[in-house]
Amino acid sequence: MLLENGSKLVMIGDSVTDCERARPVGEGLFEGIGRSYVSVVAGLLDFAYPDARLRVVNMGTSGDTTRNLVARWQTDVLDLAPDWVSVMIGINDVWRQFDSPLLTEQHVLLDEYEKNLETLVSSTLPHTKGMILISPYYMEPNAADPMRAAMDRYGAAMARVAAAHKLPFVDTQAVFNEKLRHVHANAIAWDRVHPNSKGHILLAAAFLNAVGFEWPK
Amino acid sequence: MLLENGSKLVMIGDSVTDCERARPVGEGLFEGIGRSYVSVVAGLLDFAYPDARLRVVNMGTSGDTTRNLVARWQTDVLDLAPDWVSVMIGINDVWRQFDSPLLTEQHVLLDEYEKNLETLVSSTLPHTKGMILISPYYMEPNAADPMRAAMDRYGAAMARVAAAHKLPFVDTQAVFNEKLRHVHANAIAWDRVHPNSKGHILLAAAFLNAVGFEWPK
Amino acid sequence: MLLENGSKLVMIGDSVTDCERARPVGEGLFEGIGRSYVSVVAGLLDFAYPDARLRVVNMGTSGDTTRNLVARWQTDVLDLAPDWVSVMIGINDVWRQFDSPLLTEQHVLLDEYEKNLETLVSSTLPHTKGMILISPYYMEPNAADPMRAAMDRYGAAMARVAAAHKLPFVDTQAVFNEKLRHVHANAIAWDRVHPNSKGHILLAAAFLNAVGFEWPK
Amino acid sequence: MLLENGSKLVMIGDSVTDCERARPVGEGLFEGIGRSYVSVVAGLLDFAYPDARLRVVNMGTSGDTTRNLVARWQTDVLDLAPDWVSVMIGINDVWRQFDSPLLTEQHVLLDEYEKNLETLVSSTLPHTKGMILISPYYMEPNAADPMRAAMDRYGAAMARVAAAHKLPFVDTQAVFNEKLRHVHANAIAWDRVHPNSKGHILLAAAFLNAVGFEWPK
Amino acid sequence: MLLENGSKLVMIGDSVTDCERARPVGEGLFEGIGRSYVSVVAGLLDFAYPDARLRVVNMGTSGDTTRNLVARWQTDVLDLAPDWVSVMIGINDVWRQFDSPLLTEQHVLLDEYEKNLETLVSSTLPHTKGMILISPYYMEPNAADPMRAAMDRYGAAMARVAAAHKLPFVDTQAVFNEKLRHVHANAIAWDRVHPNSKGHILLAAAFLNAVGFEWPK
Amino acid sequence: MLLENGSKLVMIGDSVTDCERARPVGEGLFEGIGRSYVSVVAGLLDFAYPDARLRVVNMGTSGDTTRNLVARWQTDVLDLAPDWVSVMIGINDVWRQFDSPLLTEQHVLLDEYEKNLETLVSSTLPHTKGMILISPYYMEPNAADPMRAAMDRYGAAMARVAAAHKLPFVDTQAVFNEKLRHVHANAIAWDRVHPNSKGHILLAAAFLNAVGFEWPK
Amino acid sequence: MLLENGSKLVMIGDSVTDCERARPVGEGLFEGIGRSYVSVVAGLLDFAYPDARLRVVNMGTSGDTTRNLVARWQTDVLDLAPDWVSVMIGINDVWRQFDSPLLTEQHVLLDEYEKNLETLVSSTLPHTKGMILISPYYMEPNAADPMRAAMDRYGAAMARVAAAHKLPFVDTQAVFNEKLRHVHANAIAWDRVHPNSKGHILLAAAFLNAVGFEWPK
Amino acid sequence: MLLENGSKLVMIGDSVTDCERARPVGEGLFEGIGRSYVSVVAGLLDFAYPDARLRVVNMGTSGDTTRNLVARWQTDVLDLAPDWVSVMIGINDVWRQFDSPLLTEQHVLLDEYEKNLETLVSSTLPHTKGMILISPYYMEPNAADPMRAAMDRYGAAMARVAAAHKLPFVDTQAVFNEKLRHVHANAIAWDRVHPNSKGHILLAAAFLNAVGFEWPK
Repeated sequence: MLLENGSKLVMIGDSVTDCERARPVGEGLFEGIGRSYVSVVAGLLDFAYPDARLRVVNMGTSGDTTRNLVARWQTDVLDLAPDWVSVMIGINDVWRQFDSPLLTEQHVLLDEYEKNLETLVSSTLPHTKGMILISPYYMEPNAADPMRAAMDRYGAAMARVAAAHKLPFVDTQAVFNEKLRHVHANAIAWDRVHPNSKGHILLAAAFLNAVGFEWPK
Repeated sequence: MLLENGSKLVMIGDSVTDCERARPVGEGLFEGIGRSYVSVVAGLLDFAYPDARLRVVNMGTSGDTTRNLVARWQTDVLDLAPDWVSVMIGINDVWRQFDSPLLTEQHVLLDEYEKNLETLVSSTLPHTKGMILISPYYMEPNAADPMRAAMDRYGAAMARVAAAHKLPFVDTQAVFNEKLRHVHANAIAWDRVHPNSKGHILLAAAFLNAVGFEWPK
Repeated sequence: MLLENGSKLVMIGDSVTDCERARPVGEGLFEGIGRSYVSVVAGLLDFAYPDARLRVVNMGTSGDTTRNLVARWQTDVLDLAPDWVSVMIGINDVWRQFDSPLLTEQHVLLDEYEKNLETLVSSTLPHTKGMILISPYYMEPNAADPMRAAMDRYGAAMARVAAAHKLPFVDTQAVFNEKLRHVHANAIAWDRVHPNSKGHILLAAAFLNAVGFEWPK
Repeated sequence: MLLENGSKLVMIGDSVTDCERARPVGEGLFEGIGRSYVSVVAGLLDFAYPDARLRVVNMGTSGDTTRNLVARWQTDVLDLAPDWVSVMIGINDVWRQFDSPLLTEQHVLLDEYEKNLETLVSSTLPHTKGMILISPYYMEPNAADPMRAAMDRYGAAMARVAAAHKLPFVDTQAVFNEKLRHVHANAIAWDRVHPNSKGHILLAAAFLNAVGFEWPK
Repeated sequence: MLLENGSKLVMIGDSVTDCERARPVGEGLFEGIGRSYVSVVAGLLDFAYPDARLRVVNMGTSGDTTRNLVARWQTDVLDLAPDWVSVMIGINDVWRQFDSPLLTEQHVLLDEYEKNLETLVSSTLPHTKGMILISPYYMEPNAADPMRAAMDRYGAAMARVAAAHKLPFVDTQAVFNEKLRHVHANAIAWDRVHPNSKGHILLAAAFLNAVGFEWPK
Repeated sequence: MLLENGSKLVMIGDSVTDCERARPVGEGLFEGIGRSYVSVVAGLLDFAYPDARLRVVNMGTSGDTTRNLVARWQTDVLDLAPDWVSVMIGINDVWRQFDSPLLTEQHVLLDEYEKNLETLVSSTLPHTKGMILISPYYMEPNAADPMRAAMDRYGAAMARVAAAHKLPFVDTQAVFNEKLRHVHANAIAWDRVHPNSKGHILLAAAFLNAVGFEWPK
Repeated sequence: MLLENGSKLVMIGDSVTDCERARPVGEGLFEGIGRSYVSVVAGLLDFAYPDARLRVVNMGTSGDTTRNLVARWQTDVLDLAPDWVSVMIGINDVWRQFDSPLLTEQHVLLDEYEKNLETLVSSTLPHTKGMILISPYYMEPNAADPMRAAMDRYGAAMARVAAAHKLPFVDTQAVFNEKLRHVHANAIAWDRVHPNSKGHILLAAAFLNAVGFEWPK
Repeated sequence: MLLENGSKLVMIGDSVTDCERARPVGEGLFEGIGRSYVSVVAGLLDFAYPDARLRVVNMGTSGDTTRNLVARWQTDVLDLAPDWVSVMIGINDVWRQFDSPLLTEQHVLLDEYEKNLETLVSSTLPHTKGMILISPYYMEPNAADPMRAAMDRYGAAMARVAAAHKLPFVDTQAVFNEKLRHVHANAIAWDRVHPNSKGHILLAAAFLNAVGFEWPK
């Protein structure tokens, strides 16, 4: 598996990541890690690699876009001295364009999104063993839906950044596309974004598969 | 206009209607009428017909299906002695089939839905001047979406009941279909059901047009 | 209509405007626009001009007088770069003189009121397409009541400022005078100031008429 | 003074009387008597007649009309075995006709009001030393205001009942009429009904004068 | 009466004065004056002198000693530009010596108390029309009780300061001594300090008598 | 010591005993025993007799008089099948006579008090190994104070009942009398009744001495 | 896998199972399933068998012993018509013997425990496809600890019942014994009972292994 | 006894000491001393030495390690000018190593612990009459448990510091070891650290014995 024994993984993102994590740092006693897929990732790693001493930290913040991540990256990622960093970001970069179409100052357009991602990655790789990029998603099966289409473009931008740096890329849109073949989006998330506990397990599994997690037999 | 001076209109439904209305009866001091389209209907009627003395009562209850309406119809509608009754119902009859697909005891299938509607209408018409049926809706522009398709079938069932009794029928799905040509569903309702204040004004206008409301010049 | 497609309207005022608007800026998700006439204005504009992309922002603050508006005008109006600005102010300038007669430091007398209005208008017009002045009111049908008489003088002062700058002027006192011919003031506002939802619709309609809103047919 | 040493006075009414009194009986430790004029009456009696051992009980209930008093009279007055009973009632009998004109089932018309008062008085006098009737009021100086005019008619009805039984009658409308010659109604009560602490002292003084209270020299 | 029409009276003290007064200044709408004797004083003045336009401000702060008053005197008294100032202080100067005998840093001994009072008075008189000194008290009838005896010494010190400056002095200990001839201290204050509403009326009456209040006939 | 290994002691009383004990039975996890002297008794017994397996239950209820104890004795004492029962009661029997002198229906006079105690004792002794009676008290050093004098009479009545049945009697008034030679009553209880934690330790020690507790060496 | 497509699994137990599940039935919208291992079981089943339509219901209740389960079995299990039932019970049967040694009425001794389990199983098997028994545990590595030793005996009793009926038996004590070889008990549960999210994943995995869950490759 | 009449004792520590003590200084009215063993120490001293005028201050802070004490020692101990200082510290220095094994920045290893203690002691002794060191403990009877073994090493380190400075040393581990011969750890503390009220009495008694407290006879 990608994550070596004793390494430290910081997982950053928006409200899908956050889910009541502790402040200022999302780890430690009293479920400081929060209740999102990050907690499932930490639990399954601990279950499958009981000797690995992997440290997982949740640094998600509700509402964040790449613009917010750039602003808090030094204190919230680099200062924590992680070995590995995962980033799931982009949903709000897109969402505001559709739920608040007139508040254009809140929109992070595709060019800026890709540039912000590039900034995050290039400033981090020199100080870490690596990064894992996790795509934004929209639980909308209709690929012609404008917001779904935009999200696909943002996901593709992230994939480009990942490819340019040869980083693992987790395609969560593909995960939910597959899931939506079995159930309606309403069975996972009323707003097609914030997953229930079943959806968080899907996200955790997708991340784990991307880092070479070995499932029990 | 359909509603005569001095008449009393009871508007019943689910959470789209409810919106913090007073209990046990949704009218009176301290905004007992709640904050949904019902309040907008009452306000616009009062604005346009200052002498009409129209009494508007909100009897919506969050989560209700037609099955719930049948159960509380006597106390919540007939006992209030209305002249006119509007019913906006069916969203939850359909929604539970998609957000809780395994909890089948919560599903109200199409046959029961139409039968329940028929029961409500036929038990009410003898005691009132008339009813207005307001269709359920789903703010999903993709008509091939299974939940949207189901909602269309339920709306059609309500239209059949309305036609059979020659009642005004408000096609809210058509209202939102038109609206979704201009903005994405997320700009009205994150869950494609519960509208923001702009959406409630659309619902109110659709209802008013159906009862022959005369807009100011 | 006065408001061009794509323009931005900031509506500022006191508690009649405020009504739970978001801070620091009253717009955006989760009904940031609040629950006053501003929300009705935004909704009716959106209903009647679905393509207009009009942006409406609520900047009301409970308790404010013109003195408060002068103090926060730069950050709360000019910094938002509006195309249009509406101001409904003056009720508290007058009210404190009658409910707190001995606390004279809280009273904004007529001269200062008119001067403050002039300051607001003259500092704003060069940066915007225009302003709409909305009169203060007191839902008191007896024109001989001293507070009603004072409010009439303040409204006249606002009308003078509007006339001097050729701005649309919304005479809300006239709106409520007409309304009070049909119902007692207690049916709209127990304190003759803070309207219920019906009263907010009257205010919204008066504003819309002043900007050339075209009602549906 | 009318109230003999050692006697027990029950003061009943609506929200003007209630003001956070204890339940089920408004007296005893922890300011069970509430914060209305009843507390001022008890305090001034105690101050002026330190040996009198007068027991004062507050049985006001917010929102009550004479119809409510008739319903709870046995448990809330007669079962307490008072020597004296004061009743201040009628504001809500009138108010609902003006703030909720369409909710006619909440209106207590003049005939019923007078009949209810007569019922209260005639069922009480045989069991007590006497009653004091306290008029309803509306802090509206304009006698032509319809609600003020109605309140005057209700006050006159109460005066008739008092006269028929030769009971002391406290004309609170006259008290506030005099007061309104000095300040605007807003300086006592924003809604012209619920007085501030200064207004409660006026009510207490009026009651005390009616029972022959001797002010200190 | 001592207080001329149109004058402003600031009443400062400890928790007996405070009683939920508004911050930073205890006056104005929503019972900013609090619920202590200060409110009764203002109400009785308003009742007896309806034309006097007397402004009464409550600046009490729970727990205060003379040491605290010295520290906040400039902002809380002088900056308010009063015509008259009343001070009821000393209970906590004494109480801490008895309820917290070992926390000597909280004790304000007699010499400091008198010196602090002198400081307050001499710094205030040049800027005002006068002051009224209100003694501390302890509702303990046994003059040999050590805390009562101490309170008597502090009251005597205040009387000396009042006499030196020829200021009215309100002897509240005498008021309660007289009251305790009729009822036990527990009927006024469980802790022999914080009075119930009856006790506050006694305090208000004592103050009013000291300023030449004319009771109604 | 009086309490045999393995025995169960129920300690009943008023608010001095209660102090946040669990309902319906004051024992068990999460400090169900409350925070009064009962908890100290249980802790010191457990400390000094680690093998004794003594079960201590707190059944105090705030505000209770002997009249209340008679009413709940079957469910709250006898049904718990105690080996030993302690009763500390009488403070409220007396207090209401002094803090609520006019509410005579709340007063439990001396005769009734003694009769109630006799009822409690005689109905309990046949079913238990014994009872311990704990006197009421008033932390008032002046024996001439009327409430203190009354409390002494009630304590004497309890002593008579104890003597008649040869029961241990804990004279808490004597405990506090001795304590008040060293500090003022305010250092233990602002209201001279509800002790601070130091006072509860005094009560616990007095009880323990009465049952032959052997202090460590 | 043991659980057929379309079957319904009710998982009952104590606080380890409960974890904020919905009342009266722990399933449905808004995470009605709670946050315990039950939620993880449902999520992993959904992830691995997307077509299985398995319905999982959480019926845990904090504090329960087998005695409580017997009492609520009809309404909380049988009335739900499950296909499969899992039971994790016994921790509180044992714990009360050690944390509340004197409250013997709360202790469920080994014989009763085994008899209660037998009752639950034999009354359920005729109506279901089968049951899975999940042992109680205590995260105490020292097998000589009396509470751990007792828990082992209770676990063995459950194993006997499972064997007698040929039911799958999940040995959670063995799971945690293995885990405690890697970390101290404090890293999973401060009280050695209530697991953090990592511990719940261990419990879920043990259950899934017992029902033949096939992990992804 | 070690503590002279009139001396001041500051007791500092972690959550076992803290228990709701007042901020910033844990003493004074309203149980500022908190509810831990500190309160029992103060109460028993007051009971046994009624003339001693001993002042006891609780300066515990939940979660603290020796590292935290070093940081706040000047303001929280030396600035209070104590005669005597007790320190119970070390539980969190050890605990974090076992409940948060990967968060090594929170671990205070043995060397640092001993050095910190030495710093506290050597900086304090010149300014006080003496210190009492109270060992950390873990209510785990199995001496082979790694956390218990670590706690023993920390306790031994504290004993070394105490011996080097000839200070009284309270061996709380020995106290609980003895107690655990009679009951299971769960009967005192579910987490083997935070004692119930019985456990606090054991701690208080151990401290008192160490300072030569003379128990009553």
